Amino acid sequence: MIDTGLRIERSSNPKQKPDPEQLSFGKVFTDHMFVMDYTEEKGWHDPRIVPYGSITLDPAAMVFHYGQTVFEGLKAYRTNDDRILLFRPEKNIQRLNRSCHRISIPQIPEEAAIDYLVKLLQVDRDWVPSAEGTSLYIRPFVFANEINLSAVPSTEYTFMIILSPVGSYYKEGIQPVNIYVEDEFTRAVRGGTGTAKTGGNYSASYIAQEKAAEKGYAQVMWLDGIEKKYIEEVGSMNVFFKIDGEIVTPILNGSILEGVTRMSIIELLRDWGYPVAERKISMEELFAAYEKGKLEEAFGTGTAAVVSPIGQLNWKEHQMVINDKRIGELSKKLYDTLTGIQRGQLPDPFNWNREVNE
Amino acid sequence: MIDTGLRIERSSNPKQKPDPEQLSFGKVFTDHMFVMDYTEEKGWHDPRIVPYGSITLDPAAMVFHYGQTVFEGLKAYRTNDDRILLFRPEKNIQRLNRSCHRISIPQIPEEAAIDYLVKLLQVDRDWVPSAEGTSLYIRPFVFANEINLSAVPSTEYTFMIILSPVGSYYKEGIQPVNIYVEDEFTRAVRGGTGTAKTGGNYSASYIAQEKAAEKGYAQVMWLDGIEKKYIEEVGSMNVFFKIDGEIVTPILNGSILEGVTRMSIIELLRDWGYPVAERKISMEELFAAYEKGKLEEAFGTGTAAVVSPIGQLNWKEHQMVINDKRIGELSKKLYDTLTGIQRGQLPDPFNWNREVNE
Repeated sequence: MIDTGLRIERSSNPKQKPDPEQLSFGKVFTDHMFVMDYTEEKGWHDPRIVPYGSITLDPAAMVFHYGQTVFEGLKAYRTNDDRILLFRPEKNIQRLNRSCHRISIPQIPEEAAIDYLVKLLQVDRDWVPSAEGTSLYIRPFVFANEINLSAVPSTEYTFMIILSPVGSYYKEGIQPVNIYVEDEFTRAVRGGTGTAKTGGNYSASYIAQEKAAEKGYAQVMWLDGIEKKYIEEVGSMNVFFKIDGEIVTPILNGSILEGVTRMSIIELLRDWGYPVAERKISMEELFAAYEKGKLEEAFGTGTAAVVSPIGQLNWKEHQMVINDKRIGELSKKLYDTLTGIQRGQLPDPFNWNREVNE
Repeated sequence: MIDTGLRIERSSNPKQKPDPEQLSFGKVFTDHMFVMDYTEEKGWHDPRIVPYGSITLDPAAMVFHYGQTVFEGLKAYRTNDDRILLFRPEKNIQRLNRSCHRISIPQIPEEAAIDYLVKLLQVDRDWVPSAEGTSLYIRPFVFANEINLSAVPSTEYTFMIILSPVGSYYKEGIQPVNIYVEDEFTRAVRGGTGTAKTGGNYSASYIAQEKAAEKGYAQVMWLDGIEKKYIEEVGSMNVFFKIDGEIVTPILNGSILEGVTRMSIIELLRDWGYPVAERKISMEELFAAYEKGKLEEAFGTGTAAVVSPIGQLNWKEHQMVINDKRIGELSKKLYDTLTGIQRGQLPDPFNWNREVNE
């Protein structure tokens, strides 16, 4: 990489910050953004923080045609004593590079990327909201922009980071959701792109999500693409089950996203002495455990919700009601602990947080 | 749809047309483009032909994040008597809508879309090249552009058509290519997006294509995602085999693209009295036929190459050389007939061509 040094151009026209009570998700953006370009000759070059604004592209730019895009999502939190904390940002940047590899996008320099992110947060520090449950959502993304209709990897890319203040995921308190187990559409398969955070995985899932919504379900649970038998993910979250005292989550098999929240939950549980099994788990097995009264809790995990309890699962003709549709004790403890660490309200024994200095 | 009528704004600054001898693929574009917008309130609206130029988008436009894009590819040809012919454009527009359905994009009005395409070709008629083997490549595409980081279907879209004069696919004459049968990476699976022309399918395939190129192969042959046993496609083309006098092509199983060239080849072959089987065919079966000397020809089909003969197939430790790496008699007849019809040099008994009047 030819690093010409980070250039910072400050906005001369700062925007009004939104009412913290009215924050939704991903529709309002801060005053600045990070941009860096890639060409074959120069590698990644011209890293810069500039006023948030539009991108101008040729209609033949590859991003419009062949889906060569990857992204990440993480959050910055404001503590009660006005410090700004990032949660395990190195894990997101490492995963971004794994996604890049799968989608044939050149690797991003990881340490520099974290440094640029921290600098961007310093510039837009005032945008990190402080109200309970709010945070600053961080969206790093890379897209192909060579002007060429050939279906080959692009020789030019743009890496950007944009920031969006977001409201609480649980405005009305945590409500367990009902889930439809999808047996027609497939999210991902071995040898495919399921482990990558690439656009195509998401748009491909909308049709199943819409089908579930029509039937009155909040989310879809995805089964493996080969046998339609083993559980993979729920919505765009990883999934955990507490079965007879043991916590079970699908093993990373090449088609499941390697969630940073998933990883952190597993580390917490093991630290607390719970038995955690990362393994294949079929819907048959889950239903059998349910029938015996052994399915104690179920929840999704992800950056947006952190922990999202599952109150009901619809699988074929079966309606499985879990823990009387109330949040489980362990689900609640995990949510409280993880959000407490992220917000600096609890000790951080694993050194997960990275503080953004002023 | 609220059709406010097609608006045409002509370029005041026409570009110089490229040297027809130097044409490559998809890098040079004509003077005009077609654009139409979609919002939930207005539906598809404001269809317009405007000077070819850049698109300006917010960095949070959904196209950069969640891969909600679909596209088509077809060609216009200039005949020896200076007529402009389109090949089965209604098939492409119908497929565009099937792709839209899979990716949760609202349907395009089909007849209007063909009308807009014809109008665009009338405006840029002079850009259709006349040299042997050249054509005007047509790229309709749709992308999501709502400003929103939520992973849900966009409420706003843009539909565009751009045009690119392209050179002969076979500048040095038709050369059979060598193909690597891919058994690690997966292109598509039942319940996935394989039948849709959506960006994610293409970027997902690059890693296998690069692996094949490193090993010295021109293209990848894709096997089914479930058993890694049955043949699906070759590169981004459909595939045909002539085995003991019968022509076999993989049946459209939900993960294979419904090629317009594939469809036309099958219709031609049946018209000529050849037995054509659309069915599952495994690599084991193909190899067994090869071993018995019954694998007579193999070729890919697609809009760009029309017919692309396969000279050699690498499957595991086996190197299968087909027809001494020469183009097969039937492959050549299919190529000559289809390109002859497309260029108006042969009769068009199936009424496939649509003429673009002046």
